[in-house]
Amino acid sequence: MFTYALTLAYEGTDFAGYAKQTDPPQRTIQGALESALVTALHLPDDSLKTVVAGRTDAGVHAAGQVVSFSHPDLGPRLFGPDGTAPLLRSLNALTPPAISVRSLRAVPPDFSARFDALTREYRYYIAPGAQPPLFTRHFAWHVPGFAADPAHRAQLQQAAAALVGEHDFSSFAVTASLVDKNPVRTILSIEFVDAVFFGEPLIEIRIVGTAFLQSMVRVIVGTLAAIDAGRIAPDAMPEILAARLRASAGPTAPACGLTLFGVTYEQFNSYNS
Amino acid sequence: MFTYALTLAYEGTDFAGYAKQTDPPQRTIQGALESALVTALHLPDDSLKTVVAGRTDAGVHAAGQVVSFSHPDLGPRLFGPDGTAPLLRSLNALTPPAISVRSLRAVPPDFSARFDALTREYRYYIAPGAQPPLFTRHFAWHVPGFAADPAHRAQLQQAAAALVGEHDFSSFAVTASLVDKNPVRTILSIEFVDAVFFGEPLIEIRIVGTAFLQSMVRVIVGTLAAIDAGRIAPDAMPEILAARLRASAGPTAPACGLTLFGVTYEQFNSYNS
Repeated sequence: MFTYALTLAYEGTDFAGYAKQTDPPQRTIQGALESALVTALHLPDDSLKTVVAGRTDAGVHAAGQVVSFSHPDLGPRLFGPDGTAPLLRSLNALTPPAISVRSLRAVPPDFSARFDALTREYRYYIAPGAQPPLFTRHFAWHVPGFAADPAHRAQLQQAAAALVGEHDFSSFAVTASLVDKNPVRTILSIEFVDAVFFGEPLIEIRIVGTAFLQSMVRVIVGTLAAIDAGRIAPDAMPEILAARLRASAGPTAPACGLTLFGVTYEQFNSYNS
Repeated sequence: MFTYALTLAYEGTDFAGYAKQTDPPQRTIQGALESALVTALHLPDDSLKTVVAGRTDAGVHAAGQVVSFSHPDLGPRLFGPDGTAPLLRSLNALTPPAISVRSLRAVPPDFSARFDALTREYRYYIAPGAQPPLFTRHFAWHVPGFAADPAHRAQLQQAAAALVGEHDFSSFAVTASLVDKNPVRTILSIEFVDAVFFGEPLIEIRIVGTAFLQSMVRVIVGTLAAIDAGRIAPDAMPEILAARLRASAGPTAPACGLTLFGVTYEQFNSYNS
């Protein structure tokens, strides 16, 4: 058996999340991808097991998701005569328009998209304009006036900086997801970047870490928004971390603003492919 | 009677263009807007006439469209106690999510969104990546490798520069639209700007002019793409203009890549409101 990794972009708006759900059946990214894979590879239904770098919740998007799977040598399906992978074209023809398979490559036999990831970057988009965004309405959370005041922006950057490093992030995770799970994670950086799309202002919150607990990025962003709104003190982050209680942090920011932007591995990264 | 102007953004994907069509009835921007206006203003159906700055074709978007209409004094519906217009909120509640009314203002009684426009800016977005864009699939035309070669980019800029100024643009318009119409228009500038959205590269072609013939921007972009692909000579623009024949120019670029970005007037502009 060989192992292959594919990189994947998707708009999560109309999906019930990444993870396959069969009872009752739901429209999921994993379901659509595995169904395309078994069709393209002429395998029996449900016979292919895939491993994903980051399970995204319903409504969350991905620009650089990574999925690995094992299969006998793909040979000419992986390397077509013109340098493009015939299997890649098949997968894009077989998946819905909101899913795009960007690349396909052979990786070492024991490679796991999940366990071999070195870093994951999530970007959370906030639309800070007075009116709701139109062109980015499926990709951003509308928070009028977010970080408009330069003094607030500086406070938010300081509050975010307190989360960088290795911490117990229990306060920032869905409680049920923590049963039997180590809640310690490492955040490498949190940056605020201003952007404009179709004339609409956006603030990107770029969070890079080794791995994340479920909903962790959304709770971090919801807490930053509560700080900006004056409902949580700007210097409260160390206490919130120490409390190890979900109730001590702010609300969970909406799913639509979140995108899994890229994943890095020893062998490659999913940012540019 | 007073005259009012509203600014409008919309995603044109699921509309049969701006202009109302009743036979057979179609889903149009004008239809949706006028229906919201008569409902909000308690007027009989079809009793309100609106004037638009730029009629956009099916699938074309707008970030800063302008529409004017006459109505008795709106009074407190225009200036609410908190500084926002109650009518604006009503219109946004009554129009589909793909339409956003951005602002509403009183203008001089004889103001016309169409005839008083000083400049109009269209932006055409091209996705030059090897694979089709995902996040901008409704907003950009996929032309793999477009202007990737710096020498090509310089040639395109030169070709575009030949269109700047006052010219007879018959070669760049839908032939039927020219009957009884003056085909002379003035282009003030054409710029190429690189952008990135969700990690996907985009090239914006920004075209500012006083007014445009139907499909003119799309034929200009289609001709630039034909030059980039080597199907039309880089120095052919003056001949194409002189020919005054639609067949001498390149193909019409797809509607989805085009956005009416902003309109300027003596009194205001639609870029930031």
